[in-house]
Amino acid sequence: MDELDIIKTIFSNLKYTGKAVKTIGDDCAVFKLGNQYLTITTDMMFKSTHFPEILTPFQIGMRVITANVSDIAAMCAKPLGIVVSMGFNHPKKEFIEELTKGMDFIAKEYECPVVGGDTNKSKELALCGTAFGITDNPIYRGGEVGDDIAITNDVGRVYCALKIIEMKNKGIINKRVFKNLLNEYSDIIKKLSEPRARVKEGIAINKYVNSCCDISDGLGKDLYYVGNFEISSKKLLNTLPKDVMEFCDRFDLNPIDVALNSGEEFELLFTTKKYNDVEDELGKLSTKSIKIGKVIDDGHYIDSDEFKFGGYVHKWKI
Amino acid sequence: MDELDIIKTIFSNLKYTGKAVKTIGDDCAVFKLGNQYLTITTDMMFKSTHFPEILTPFQIGMRVITANVSDIAAMCAKPLGIVVSMGFNHPKKEFIEELTKGMDFIAKEYECPVVGGDTNKSKELALCGTAFGITDNPIYRGGEVGDDIAITNDVGRVYCALKIIEMKNKGIINKRVFKNLLNEYSDIIKKLSEPRARVKEGIAINKYVNSCCDISDGLGKDLYYVGNFEISSKKLLNTLPKDVMEFCDRFDLNPIDVALNSGEEFELLFTTKKYNDVEDELGKLSTKSIKIGKVIDDGHYIDSDEFKFGGYVHKWKI
Repeated sequence: MDELDIIKTIFSNLKYTGKAVKTIGDDCAVFKLGNQYLTITTDMMFKSTHFPEILTPFQIGMRVITANVSDIAAMCAKPLGIVVSMGFNHPKKEFIEELTKGMDFIAKEYECPVVGGDTNKSKELALCGTAFGITDNPIYRGGEVGDDIAITNDVGRVYCALKIIEMKNKGIINKRVFKNLLNEYSDIIKKLSEPRARVKEGIAINKYVNSCCDISDGLGKDLYYVGNFEISSKKLLNTLPKDVMEFCDRFDLNPIDVALNSGEEFELLFTTKKYNDVEDELGKLSTKSIKIGKVIDDGHYIDSDEFKFGGYVHKWKI
Repeated sequence: MDELDIIKTIFSNLKYTGKAVKTIGDDCAVFKLGNQYLTITTDMMFKSTHFPEILTPFQIGMRVITANVSDIAAMCAKPLGIVVSMGFNHPKKEFIEELTKGMDFIAKEYECPVVGGDTNKSKELALCGTAFGITDNPIYRGGEVGDDIAITNDVGRVYCALKIIEMKNKGIINKRVFKNLLNEYSDIIKKLSEPRARVKEGIAINKYVNSCCDISDGLGKDLYYVGNFEISSKKLLNTLPKDVMEFCDRFDLNPIDVALNSGEEFELLFTTKKYNDVEDELGKLSTKSIKIGKVIDDGHYIDSDEFKFGGYVHKWKI
């Protein structure tokens, strides 16, 4: 069974939804509690499939919190807290020290305390976070026709960082060159190793947007959550920061491919009819926003050509 | 590092607690939301350490929900929902069908829908549930001096069921005798394979109890959550149902040991100064309650002897 078959089978059997406002199929499940909404998300990670080898234990701790909190941000909600279950295989004390210090550090930054968890023996490092947040207006995935489609900050660096690791692992570059590239492209490496969930941004744009999700699988896949769209390749190039453009040039990568296939960026992808307000609000946080297209009534287009996306491949999955 | 070292290290680093009312150290973490309290718990399980071999996939699905919901019941709160992340190692479709049908079946019984999750490839079956509940009065673990200490229903069957499996695995009994025992002690086996979280009971006794937890590690260990106590061995024997007493006699087990060491019972252990009210409320649900002792101001006693508990060993842990 491939992952899609597994998910289909699970979906078809989990029929009971109780009083949930939203269950499977968005960034978070949602419940109404009085005048507020509780948003919940969970993300499970294993060492062999989820953590690029360059991550330190501190950064692994940061990542499990960030990946979960990013889904709260994608609902434009405020994080309340997170629980993290951990499975270890003969861990060293220093590893657990650094892992949990990384968690605590970033939890404080997001104002999202780690309030509980569970520890187990397992065959490899396993981390499962469940974050929950609060909002009076949860923002879902589907945009309205006529909305501008935009993202926060930029994309592309994660793709390039994984490319550097891939080149080393395939023997295309030796260890010395690898080390030099890590230093030369420090912003690119940092976006892979210490990404941030856009919590403040999500809260700031809550009342101006019609839809929001986070960029976790790469724009090419995540764009489908918006609904029907037309995007502009020229605008898409604007999402790439200078170092990524230079990297693409140097290593002969197609920048459009890089923009569409860079996953785990944790930037927000949103749609709005009040783009100027969004730009103002994000500006107050020194966060850029970049328009890439529009929600339309039918079809998926890039520069008036049909957009056919081949699908994202998890870059560090074995 | 043993589990205690791991937990100590984690505790010492997770310093940021934000606005949580309660973090690590009770059955659930607790947040105040308006006039209500949100209670959250998480439980991670791996095939090789958590699921007795006699469990069917349907029963494994039930168990991951029950183990989590039991912690909500232990706060005397009402379950709201649960998310379950799943790691699979080349699963068969029938396995996932049965697993998720078991989850859905019991989720409905608890009125606690499975509202989300995550799927992954992993080296063995891994299930991580996070349940959340609501109450206007969360009940914590520590009792008040003078409280009666009591439990719901009974304990002991899980210990006996694991004993049957152990005897088979050690070659003390052959497969034929094993099968006969499974049939002969069907109530004992059922308490291991299809335990229930005492959700209705927790809600019913909420306003009459001073403390509550669920019996997950076995009474001998869980009693310490109450605080200082004196228990009566005679009353402790009352917690064992007839089939357990008969089983103890037949297989030469000390019934007191069985009562103290039977884990994953998911019964409630509570303390109260209004025992008669509790008995009435539980009676309406056809649930028995059994008094076993009192909360005292200092020390731990059984029949006026000092109570020294050697510690619970997870019976199916490798």
